[in-house]
Amino acid sequence: MTAIDDTAQVPDFSLRPVRLGIDTHHEPVVVLRADSPVVRAEGFEAHARIEVLGAQRSIVATLNILTAGELVDTDSVGLSEAAWRRLAPAPGERLRFRYAQPCESMSHVRAKIFGEVLDETQFDAIIGDTVAGRLSNVEIAAFLVACADGRLDGSEVTALTRAMVRSGARLHWPQPVVVDKHCIGGLPGNRTTPIVVAIAASLGLVMPKTSSRAITSPAGTADTVETLTRVDLTLDEMRRVVDAEGGCMVWGGAMNMSPADDLLIRVERTLDLDSEGQLVASVLSKKAAAGSTHVVIDIPTGPTAKVRSQADAQSLLAALQRTARELGLTLHGLISDGSQPVGRGIGPALEAHDVLAVLRGSADAPDDLRRRALQVAAAVVECGALAHGAAALDLARAALADGRALRKFEAICRAQGGLREPGVAPFRRALAAPCDGRVERIDNRLLARAAKLAGAPHARTAGIRLAVHVGDRVERGAPLFELHAESQGELDYAEVFVRQHADIVHLEEGA
Amino acid sequence: MTAIDDTAQVPDFSLRPVRLGIDTHHEPVVVLRADSPVVRAEGFEAHARIEVLGAQRSIVATLNILTAGELVDTDSVGLSEAAWRRLAPAPGERLRFRYAQPCESMSHVRAKIFGEVLDETQFDAIIGDTVAGRLSNVEIAAFLVACADGRLDGSEVTALTRAMVRSGARLHWPQPVVVDKHCIGGLPGNRTTPIVVAIAASLGLVMPKTSSRAITSPAGTADTVETLTRVDLTLDEMRRVVDAEGGCMVWGGAMNMSPADDLLIRVERTLDLDSEGQLVASVLSKKAAAGSTHVVIDIPTGPTAKVRSQADAQSLLAALQRTARELGLTLHGLISDGSQPVGRGIGPALEAHDVLAVLRGSADAPDDLRRRALQVAAAVVECGALAHGAAALDLARAALADGRALRKFEAICRAQGGLREPGVAPFRRALAAPCDGRVERIDNRLLARAAKLAGAPHARTAGIRLAVHVGDRVERGAPLFELHAESQGELDYAEVFVRQHADIVHLEEGA
Repeated sequence: MTAIDDTAQVPDFSLRPVRLGIDTHHEPVVVLRADSPVVRAEGFEAHARIEVLGAQRSIVATLNILTAGELVDTDSVGLSEAAWRRLAPAPGERLRFRYAQPCESMSHVRAKIFGEVLDETQFDAIIGDTVAGRLSNVEIAAFLVACADGRLDGSEVTALTRAMVRSGARLHWPQPVVVDKHCIGGLPGNRTTPIVVAIAASLGLVMPKTSSRAITSPAGTADTVETLTRVDLTLDEMRRVVDAEGGCMVWGGAMNMSPADDLLIRVERTLDLDSEGQLVASVLSKKAAAGSTHVVIDIPTGPTAKVRSQADAQSLLAALQRTARELGLTLHGLISDGSQPVGRGIGPALEAHDVLAVLRGSADAPDDLRRRALQVAAAVVECGALAHGAAALDLARAALADGRALRKFEAICRAQGGLREPGVAPFRRALAAPCDGRVERIDNRLLARAAKLAGAPHARTAGIRLAVHVGDRVERGAPLFELHAESQGELDYAEVFVRQHADIVHLEEGA
Repeated sequence: MTAIDDTAQVPDFSLRPVRLGIDTHHEPVVVLRADSPVVRAEGFEAHARIEVLGAQRSIVATLNILTAGELVDTDSVGLSEAAWRRLAPAPGERLRFRYAQPCESMSHVRAKIFGEVLDETQFDAIIGDTVAGRLSNVEIAAFLVACADGRLDGSEVTALTRAMVRSGARLHWPQPVVVDKHCIGGLPGNRTTPIVVAIAASLGLVMPKTSSRAITSPAGTADTVETLTRVDLTLDEMRRVVDAEGGCMVWGGAMNMSPADDLLIRVERTLDLDSEGQLVASVLSKKAAAGSTHVVIDIPTGPTAKVRSQADAQSLLAALQRTARELGLTLHGLISDGSQPVGRGIGPALEAHDVLAVLRGSADAPDDLRRRALQVAAAVVECGALAHGAAALDLARAALADGRALRKFEAICRAQGGLREPGVAPFRRALAAPCDGRVERIDNRLLARAAKLAGAPHARTAGIRLAVHVGDRVERGAPLFELHAESQGELDYAEVFVRQHADIVHLEEGA
């Protein structure tokens, strides 16, 4: 036992919060002056993790130290947007600081690094701290690497998935069968969702579809649907649409389902780390949180798709099946052709035009998109136990052909706030074939990049409209694709890129 | 092949650099406005890694996006100190931006994550990109985790060590035998280095000692020696001191030896990740870069030391021996008692007083520090082949006892720029024993933390002066230790901490 001779006061090292307006994504950052008494007393160094204590709330933040200039004064602390949002200081409130205690969940991460098998409580702690912003990106990266290369066993993937579901909101539906679909990654233009929802709902199935916006792609389903109708519905508004029409197509981002997923994905993307266990947890946690009971998973497979080989696709599907079973989800897998883009448009409005053309049965509707949407819809019909095998495909085909799907689509759009026509970009340039030949292959990744340089998804009508598919014969000078942009600058920018990457559409000369 | 119809210009999205004065440690950060044409055209998002291209140099930086306020205008980009330093823009120079290509070395990191054995070329690429600032902390964390838990085999530890040596400057000495010493982590007050250098050089050995400043401890050897003489010598100045006196005690930080080490250690520390392979590479890369041929490694072992058990110490020593052999270094290991602090002082000047007392043979010189310094010096004497076993210890003891070591120490200090007396802190408070008893244990970690709260190492005379060691009997009211500070606020701050941690010095009551 040690005692102190007399009482001592804690010095008042509190500071006034100042909003810097800097977006550092989810990781809170605070800026302190090097000559601030707090920095000197605590011996804080740049990039330390420190705890910031307000009157009501506290956060853990990464410290940046101001060594020159007047961004903050000695009585103030600068807060990034994430720090400001989480602390939400009241007027006149002052903040205190101390070295952050290491998160207890990091001891579980270290256990995983050193080869232990984690249980659900441990995953709960890690995912909870991730969502609460208590883990830095560096710590999240350590967790992801510790789980990569098959170091999560089947029970751990399920435990992680459950932890991710619990960390956010969960939707509940009164119906016993709630169908859903998901496509694994990265095939430009593969916008089957609005068509599948329309067919399924027109056949009486319940399909409350939530979708995401683009993270790295030129368009997410929510971006595309937003060019046709409103997608940022509240949960109550979404319920009313589903009650009335049996289906919806809304943005899931505001509903806080499996919020850890987006945070993990961002760091995984930085590392370009594909881990099967994380992918399974990511996909199934969103589906379970959305209250789905039956899910169709489409896995496009091809050399420039996310899943590159049949073996990888089979392994992923088996892992998905195992965890789905443990979560009580019925899962139907489709391994599809991922060798080239689907439809013609790449970009929000361009893809919406394709969707409308298929629903309306237009003469120029892209047949590949129509066939894929029917294939997925048939799987959803099977999941919903309306029919099986060829009969399921016939049901879906009939609903599309006789206009029921179109009418249901229009009704859903009206219920969500009205149907609008997607626009067309004002700046366009066609890229011509340099020779006679046959299209041998198309690079999905480069095409997506070019569409983004043209402005997609933030410029809604920007992107690429393909004029050819693999196997097509073209003559010299005929268009291969057309760049669409909302500004001359972005059009030029995309064109420079496609000029530098002549192999986006590969022709076999004279073939 | 794809051709373009006509020529297109890259739009001029260049911006004017503005120095923000924000220290983000080694990771460059740039701040762009959300409404900047660059952000819109490139589709940059917060926390993206982007390439910043100047006229002469380019860097990879982490992007923060300004969503409110006027920190930078639409024609400008804000640069953190690390970004400003690496780009060093000329007046009027403008910067361009693009998404950073993934570093090729990250493909090696991913290979390691997926269980491959890396070769020296691959470690070279990873370490080179780390030093060049092309890897973010998140990417460095992935590398460290991939190497943890024994996932580096012996050949990889050696390859990593060699890559770390090559990444920086190397010292070369004309003498065939160049001795060195190193202590593995974290025993407060264990400041044997100046005494060992003085003894070794007085016996004719060549010991060009470079030391570091504190990273997390209350004092590094360079911090302590700086209270006695100048330590920030250039390489040429260092050579002249060693030529004249056979030894030196300088700060190694400016010499750029194994610069990757500090960067890796910072991230390891964030993760609280101790990895034997990384530790071996860290220690031996610095020694090899310093041109040493013979090294004594002291491994203090105890429950609150860095190495906690004899088994861990033996395993670490074996790993050190193996890599040292492959590097051509002769290594002599000492596993020493790490159960409590050494000497009385903890903090730069307080430790310097202990060092001087031992060298001067003062009556109140701390005997534990004297004995430890002699033990290490004897090992250095053995390494240098001057004598072996008891004879080596006798040689060292004689050099200390007859004043040769003190005279050599004074000569080295004069050659480095003059000897000065370390000061004494103006604010001091003694902490008294709450009861009669016997000191049962002392917590090294809490003691170090208290010394830092009192101001060490930035306040040179601040820290703690211990009045007792384990086994001592004390009476109620007798001092256990004394806090030293350079300001009343810091003294109070440290006192609150020790009051909250009554177990720093644990007494067995009435024993």
